[in-house]
Amino acid sequence: MSAQGRTTASSVAANELIDFVSRLFVAAGLPDHAASEVAGGLVEADLDGLSSHGVMLADMYIDRLRKGSVLRNTSAAVVSERNGAVVLDAGHALGHLTGRQAMTIAVEKANQFATGIVTVRHGFHFGTAGRYARQAAQAGCIGIAMCNTRPLMPAPGGAERVVGNNPLAIALPTAGEIPVVLDMATSEAAMGKIRMAEKAKEAIPLNWAVTVNGEPTTNPTEAIAGMLLPASGAKGFGLSFMIDLMCGLLSHGAFGPQVQPLYGDFAVPYDCSHLFIAVDVAHFCDVGWFRQQVAAAAERIRNGKRAAGVEHLFIPGEPEWRRHQAAKGKVKLDSAVSIMLTRLANELGVPNNPLRNTTKEGPHA
Amino acid sequence: MSAQGRTTASSVAANELIDFVSRLFVAAGLPDHAASEVAGGLVEADLDGLSSHGVMLADMYIDRLRKGSVLRNTSAAVVSERNGAVVLDAGHALGHLTGRQAMTIAVEKANQFATGIVTVRHGFHFGTAGRYARQAAQAGCIGIAMCNTRPLMPAPGGAERVVGNNPLAIALPTAGEIPVVLDMATSEAAMGKIRMAEKAKEAIPLNWAVTVNGEPTTNPTEAIAGMLLPASGAKGFGLSFMIDLMCGLLSHGAFGPQVQPLYGDFAVPYDCSHLFIAVDVAHFCDVGWFRQQVAAAAERIRNGKRAAGVEHLFIPGEPEWRRHQAAKGKVKLDSAVSIMLTRLANELGVPNNPLRNTTKEGPHA
Repeated sequence: MSAQGRTTASSVAANELIDFVSRLFVAAGLPDHAASEVAGGLVEADLDGLSSHGVMLADMYIDRLRKGSVLRNTSAAVVSERNGAVVLDAGHALGHLTGRQAMTIAVEKANQFATGIVTVRHGFHFGTAGRYARQAAQAGCIGIAMCNTRPLMPAPGGAERVVGNNPLAIALPTAGEIPVVLDMATSEAAMGKIRMAEKAKEAIPLNWAVTVNGEPTTNPTEAIAGMLLPASGAKGFGLSFMIDLMCGLLSHGAFGPQVQPLYGDFAVPYDCSHLFIAVDVAHFCDVGWFRQQVAAAAERIRNGKRAAGVEHLFIPGEPEWRRHQAAKGKVKLDSAVSIMLTRLANELGVPNNPLRNTTKEGPHA
Repeated sequence: MSAQGRTTASSVAANELIDFVSRLFVAAGLPDHAASEVAGGLVEADLDGLSSHGVMLADMYIDRLRKGSVLRNTSAAVVSERNGAVVLDAGHALGHLTGRQAMTIAVEKANQFATGIVTVRHGFHFGTAGRYARQAAQAGCIGIAMCNTRPLMPAPGGAERVVGNNPLAIALPTAGEIPVVLDMATSEAAMGKIRMAEKAKEAIPLNWAVTVNGEPTTNPTEAIAGMLLPASGAKGFGLSFMIDLMCGLLSHGAFGPQVQPLYGDFAVPYDCSHLFIAVDVAHFCDVGWFRQQVAAAAERIRNGKRAAGVEHLFIPGEPEWRRHQAAKGKVKLDSAVSIMLTRLANELGVPNNPLRNTTKEGPHA
């Protein structure tokens, strides 16, 4: 399901939406606290303007719960624990739950050993990687989160998909209001941007994608049938390859083609692997000083000299933060997403749907 | 001094060159073992085809030793040590020496705590970051090395230099012959490639650089007067910003504009900061199994389907390895570099210069 190119949208209060989506997950068999955690994570992504990681995922998550490829356990099992190293088996639970758990453990280990690294096998989609990096930063740690996906990109010069667009997030504790968090996929561009170019009948840059045979293309239709390219060529490819192996091997989990398509057969576990790192700043220096320095450095960037016509310079994480501020607690949903959530509510017998009056450009639209 | 665009080159045996450059450093006041270490690191970079990090740096290093901005101490002092976290003060010693020392400590701490992180303040140029990442990988650890440089790149949309092209290296233990090591600068392109385009009177891609006012340009001359752009825009910028702050703050060292130009006033310390991470694979899984899996994954990439006209697919680190193999123990030196080394030998009274007969296209050329 894609939110691109739809013009009608409904607006709903974030807390109402969390409550509603949470009740959908409860109806699908999750315990209350787990349902709230997942719904909260999805709605947070919508508020941050990252709708591809928002409530539009609810039907895929719930279909997978029904078909048994996502399980209803709410925590991962500890496979091994040795000093600052912990291996978890998520048992195909929802990634929002095991991600939070894993980073909580990583922070505890960091407090004890300086660095905590928690790897997760048999994992599922955990939303945005930045969410977990920020969790660590809020606890006074440098937070790093990554995961692998099924192969989507070729090696430079390659004609088949060999690595995912495996995301990497890094967050630093800051005294500033704006979170300092980098959350990047290792592809040059997102598939969503290529789809938008196709709809607008615009050419795409040569470094975004190749055809299915690995040939250069500026044609978005050929690109969609083809493959995403790694960010900055060999650099993004190398990062992605390293992330895949670190996630998959340290957890003794899946990597490379062992990770399954997220939108493939919903009866087949996705089976990705995650890696969470927390570095306890207090082991190196005063955390308050560190936070002040990060905030000051962020302000230097933001207030730097701009090129003509440029209104703002952003630190990593600021675009999401600005969208979150601008949302004022309201989520604007694409009508297809509203219709999907309403369909789920009807199927699962969930009452008090806050979207009922908004799916046809109602009073909140 | 740039090696680009020179056509005359001399060839010299790597071991002779190491011995010779080592004697230059001894004459400049370094103890034997330190001189060998630095010379070995420089020649290794030349063998890997990374001449910008090779013996062409010798005169800058030695001029800085003479002018007092690089000191003759051969090890960094331990500032603090707390579980897996160590802060070192390099005291402006040569980075090849303190880098090796720092990663050795990081590996020891990783063996003890799962992860060791060693930060270095008052550091100097350490050659290629990949060298230290590989050191850890050889010891059965995932090795990560990074450092900051003075500001060279703008934020996306910016018109002033605010972050360095701060390198990041990641190496994995492997059972294969080819080291698996990513060593990337966070700029889209190296300045050397832009200089080559200028000499060839060719346009450069729009994503390589901007003018001094932050305006887009495909003109290499404008680019050289302007600024390098981060790799893949906001992604490389974010990585660079995070690397700068992690290196500078965890070490309580220099970051941002506090780091000085490498080729500025040779009486002023460069004062960069380094960060070394070792993750002990044995804390998570069997190291032999890990090495085998990495080697197998590398072969899958290398043997993947190629686009038409593409001869080889490379894993990260393979281009350097191939050049090293092809060199067969011989270093091809640009004539300007040979002349510079010969000048240093004459100035420092160092006998038995193996380049004497090669600087004018002698029998080895």
